[in-house]
Amino acid sequence: MRLNLCLSGFGNIARHFIRYFSARREAVLARYGLDLRLVTVVGSQGGLHDSAGLDTARLLALPPGSSGLRQMSGLWSPALASAAGIAASSADVLVEATPTDIWTGEPGLAHFRAALEKGMDIVTFTKGPLVKSFGEIKVLARARGARIKVGGATAAALPTMDIGSYSLAGDELQAFEGVLNGTSNYVLSRMAADGLTCEEAIAEAVARGVAEPDPRLDVAGWDTASKTIILANCLFDAEINLAGVPVQGIQEITLADIRAAEARGEAIKLIGKAQKTASGVQVAVRARSIPFAHPLAALSGTAKGIRFISATLGEIVVSGGKSDPLGTAAAGFKDIINLVRDKGLLPPV
Amino acid sequence: MRLNLCLSGFGNIARHFIRYFSARREAVLARYGLDLRLVTVVGSQGGLHDSAGLDTARLLALPPGSSGLRQMSGLWSPALASAAGIAASSADVLVEATPTDIWTGEPGLAHFRAALEKGMDIVTFTKGPLVKSFGEIKVLARARGARIKVGGATAAALPTMDIGSYSLAGDELQAFEGVLNGTSNYVLSRMAADGLTCEEAIAEAVARGVAEPDPRLDVAGWDTASKTIILANCLFDAEINLAGVPVQGIQEITLADIRAAEARGEAIKLIGKAQKTASGVQVAVRARSIPFAHPLAALSGTAKGIRFISATLGEIVVSGGKSDPLGTAAAGFKDIINLVRDKGLLPPV
Repeated sequence: MRLNLCLSGFGNIARHFIRYFSARREAVLARYGLDLRLVTVVGSQGGLHDSAGLDTARLLALPPGSSGLRQMSGLWSPALASAAGIAASSADVLVEATPTDIWTGEPGLAHFRAALEKGMDIVTFTKGPLVKSFGEIKVLARARGARIKVGGATAAALPTMDIGSYSLAGDELQAFEGVLNGTSNYVLSRMAADGLTCEEAIAEAVARGVAEPDPRLDVAGWDTASKTIILANCLFDAEINLAGVPVQGIQEITLADIRAAEARGEAIKLIGKAQKTASGVQVAVRARSIPFAHPLAALSGTAKGIRFISATLGEIVVSGGKSDPLGTAAAGFKDIINLVRDKGLLPPV
Repeated sequence: MRLNLCLSGFGNIARHFIRYFSARREAVLARYGLDLRLVTVVGSQGGLHDSAGLDTARLLALPPGSSGLRQMSGLWSPALASAAGIAASSADVLVEATPTDIWTGEPGLAHFRAALEKGMDIVTFTKGPLVKSFGEIKVLARARGARIKVGGATAAALPTMDIGSYSLAGDELQAFEGVLNGTSNYVLSRMAADGLTCEEAIAEAVARGVAEPDPRLDVAGWDTASKTIILANCLFDAEINLAGVPVQGIQEITLADIRAAEARGEAIKLIGKAQKTASGVQVAVRARSIPFAHPLAALSGTAKGIRFISATLGEIVVSGGKSDPLGTAAAGFKDIINLVRDKGLLPPV
């Protein structure tokens, strides 16, 4: 079967998505009988549409960023910018890859609304709309029978939602806790292993490209909080937002804290945690001192991991997944396949 | 939507399945709108059928084993034994929970055939049919458009197939390796931690109920081989059987081997491994000496774990999952929900 995609954004993740999509198209057609076409790309200034499928090699030759799209002669139109481009697209699935703003949810939120109004399914790398307005989006999606896949926004190549929704289906999930931000874990690991101060380790992470140029969202815990909130909302059917979550980052952690923890046989990790309690779902993000034997304690460098606690299926710990833009792109691509699967459109294999 | 189940077998796992099914029915109806009914139970001597749904409390009050079914007055019929009972059932899904025989595949193989002939989907705890006759079953299932879920037969509460089929969808799986047998890992752990000989540790595992009364399938590597073969066949679309797999167990491992490995900074683990090579998919089971830093080295006691290596999504390691009959039952129950999901019959959530 044929499935048309509309990509929103033309930055780093979006371009890696195009690259990966292009490399895996044929294999997915052979394996699943799924004929994926990228028919629309929208940016803030305009967009491209070709119902026969855009030429990915030409796309990748364009300069990055929304203004690059303008150079695709013959196909570019300012009328196809952002939400208008999504509304006009004949695509089945919106692949949302614009930068995340967890405070306003934009520009992703407008894109989500445009897609959901049409009953278009969504695969998102962007966290903002789900962090800011989960309740609104859920209502809109349910009203239109649309599906939203959030793997690309919840630690990407590390399976988090997949475990929670597929592997624990039918059981009673009690809690989960995760090391969900690679930059913060890298900083804590460098401090512990090499005696750097927190500031030094952050500066080094930025210099080595491990961290974003502005690492504040990461080290202050907001990225971890965003992922934890999205997972908690999806897995516990909750409607938590940032206002309901105590968030503490790692900036205050000193080398002395880490050495003192080590002396107790513990490691300090930035952990996003959600648990079901008698008074509802509690979510918190903070740097916790956990025993070396804790399954998240051994994660070093940019490694991520998550531990689920389920009533009968027990404790399940998963770690790993490539922490790079192509790995992230592949996680969104995987979500597209599972979206089609959830709709019953993949053949039995 | 309503989904009718036919349970094959009435032993330990089957009864735990009934118990778990009974406990989670209402929650699954509320969460997924999925109305599960157990309409048929078949044993070797006869079976029970009630299209309104069998009374699970009455079922659980019966003595275990196929002969116990006979005591359910009014509903028992010798005409509903085994494959005949499956063929006569109005169920949508066969839940296969008879004892595994990996050499003959029976009695599960006859049950699989009876179900697939009708286009009935299968959720299996039983490994035999898939180990013995994967190719035949695949052809039959594809011809009838039936689906088979193997989570209950591939380390159960530890997600293995789920990771391989959902979380790595669309990417290129290169290899996986797992500690997939709790008994063998328990034996090796007890040897390493407490200086027991292999024989002593096996005897203790049997005495404590960790191992089956006949632990030979476990410690000789056959259980690990069976799980590895099923996973490899499903994830690599291969048709490997026991004849194509070198299988070595842990019986020859001595305490001296373990101490020598430790001196090298290594642990001995029974590992089932599958990898894609230029000449096809290679599967092997043997006790391997792996560095302490290897993600499977730290698994102790009856813990299980698996490591996937995927071209772009990277390395993913998962461990845990309750190693008991109720956890196993819950894994099969989870597969029923995902079977329905794969058919597109669960509402977006």
